Amino acid sequence: MALGENAVCQVAIVVRDIEAAIKKWAGVLGAPPPAWHMTGPKEESHINYRGQSTDARAKLAFFELGQVSLELIEPVGGPSVWQEVLDRSGPCVHHIAFRIKGMDAALAGLSKQGLPTLQRSDFTNGCSGYVDSAKDLGVIVELLEHFK
Amino acid sequence: MALGENAVCQVAIVVRDIEAAIKKWAGVLGAPPPAWHMTGPKEESHINYRGQSTDARAKLAFFELGQVSLELIEPVGGPSVWQEVLDRSGPCVHHIAFRIKGMDAALAGLSKQGLPTLQRSDFTNGCSGYVDSAKDLGVIVELLEHFK
Repeated sequence: MALGENAVCQVAIVVRDIEAAIKKWAGVLGAPPPAWHMTGPKEESHINYRGQSTDARAKLAFFELGQVSLELIEPVGGPSVWQEVLDRSGPCVHHIAFRIKGMDAALAGLSKQGLPTLQRSDFTNGCSGYVDSAKDLGVIVELLEHFK
Repeated sequence: MALGENAVCQVAIVVRDIEAAIKKWAGVLGAPPPAWHMTGPKEESHINYRGQSTDARAKLAFFELGQVSLELIEPVGGPSVWQEVLDRSGPCVHHIAFRIKGMDAALAGLSKQGLPTLQRSDFTNGCSGYVDSAKDLGVIVELLEHFK
């Protein structure tokens, strides 16, 4: 499993207050403040964190910066990789995301390379998988798949 | 001072052992391992950290991922923003960099917005400035200027 050299698509920051973070980033970037939206309920997202279903959701907002989006994440509700990072490190870079095709095979491939899956979820026309790469790579890697 | 919406150009990770980090990232990306190089001595880099000259240097390596580079940084020598982050947080995302024109004005503008300068240095045909944005933005911002 290799992510490839042109697949990076997101840098994400976990925050305590997404509205405050949107305002600050909009000011520094000189960009219009994006609206945030809430991830779906678990009946839709099928979210699984460290092997267990969870009630966790998140408020998400995106600044489009060309090839990459700057994503802001405010964790809401139950346990999640978002809440785990915020509790451990405070507001900080949460992950770097790469576009992939074939989530199951990609996660299995990374797991074989010593990077086990932390969290998986679905969204409209796509799915997400986070891998436990912070120790090896210095940051959590997210795989993002968008269906046609 | 606004950074703009298409100026993001780097995501950088501070590491303890750049050769080990290059090997791990090359494996995950499926990319050839880049060579690292050392930043110049202070006589060339004029490096200034928190208002003082320093002997700090760094080993740097870059994976080119399209619009953005993934930079790996191993601090060497004296005090620096690189060593500060590594000592405080261990290996992690160190900064996100944005291309700008006019370093003095850009740093002064961000300082007026409550983001004071942490470190400045010169390199061949360019210069770098880091601002103290971790509290407000969740990550250190680097300004990068390349001269013609």
